[in-house]
Amino acid sequence: MTRKVVVYIAASLDGYIAGEGDDLGFLEMATKEGEDYGYADFMKTIDTVILGRRTFDWLLRMNVFAYPGKEVYVVTNQNLESIEGMQYFCGEPQKLIAQLQEKPGRNIFCDGGASLIHSLLCENLVDELTISYLPVLLGKGIPLFSSDREKTLLQFVSAKTFDTGLLQIHYKMLK
Amino acid sequence: MTRKVVVYIAASLDGYIAGEGDDLGFLEMATKEGEDYGYADFMKTIDTVILGRRTFDWLLRMNVFAYPGKEVYVVTNQNLESIEGMQYFCGEPQKLIAQLQEKPGRNIFCDGGASLIHSLLCENLVDELTISYLPVLLGKGIPLFSSDREKTLLQFVSAKTFDTGLLQIHYKMLK
Repeated sequence: MTRKVVVYIAASLDGYIAGEGDDLGFLEMATKEGEDYGYADFMKTIDTVILGRRTFDWLLRMNVFAYPGKEVYVVTNQNLESIEGMQYFCGEPQKLIAQLQEKPGRNIFCDGGASLIHSLLCENLVDELTISYLPVLLGKGIPLFSSDREKTLLQFVSAKTFDTGLLQIHYKMLK
Repeated sequence: MTRKVVVYIAASLDGYIAGEGDDLGFLEMATKEGEDYGYADFMKTIDTVILGRRTFDWLLRMNVFAYPGKEVYVVTNQNLESIEGMQYFCGEPQKLIAQLQEKPGRNIFCDGGASLIHSLLCENLVDELTISYLPVLLGKGIPLFSSDREKTLLQFVSAKTFDTGLLQIHYKMLK
């Protein structure tokens, strides 16, 4: 069975994955001791992480780059030398996905950013989509979905609600 | 108790309330005999409908303008004569809301479009928000949420799922 490409991301109800200035402060409203919203279980289903360059730089800058035990690929259009714990992939994201899917393994987690997700959606490469909606309208910021894609039908899988007001929805792409 | 302003609207999962060319064809995927997704019950909670001018013209053109037994106001910036079944309101939407809220009555339903919803959100005039997400990414069209608003905290009320794949979520605005 081909390894699936999965997007698993948090957003405001108006569809922003970060506020102005890449601010992720809105995520704190859902912080609750002992509640990870299924993240640890999700991480067991994947063994590879792909990231856009801007997201990777942000994670480094915030000192929160950490995917223990996972293969990490950062998609970039510059030829850069890989460093410990990750590899740069210079080229079209669909080529990376094709290479990864030739090998056996668990699912492939695209952890953003919006630009990489958009590229994968445009190429119809995303298999599953989980969005954790925080109960807030940010009003501005970085939108999860950019415009100018073809229509994609989805299959609703589940909607989980949490007492913090977080709503986690899960869909499969119908291809 | 002040009459609430409620937005009750359908959208694609990527946040479009209409596809290219104002196309609402995507709503048909949720059409099911005997299933109105709570619309009739919702309509009992309101006695007034407010619409943007463009939405009103579209409803007329499609021959689907019908809010039996409701007071209907169309917000416009032109001084136009009202016709049977509706009244034009020339001015800022917040003035209309203020006028309506001075009178007793049931809730006030903003049935779009995106531009009027945006104006009401900017003025912090929306009290409740119900979105029925269809299981599709449209990829382009008219977005429900425009950018450039202030942050608004929400209170999660409910998420209802239907076997057509429609997901209906309901939030209250925290003011």
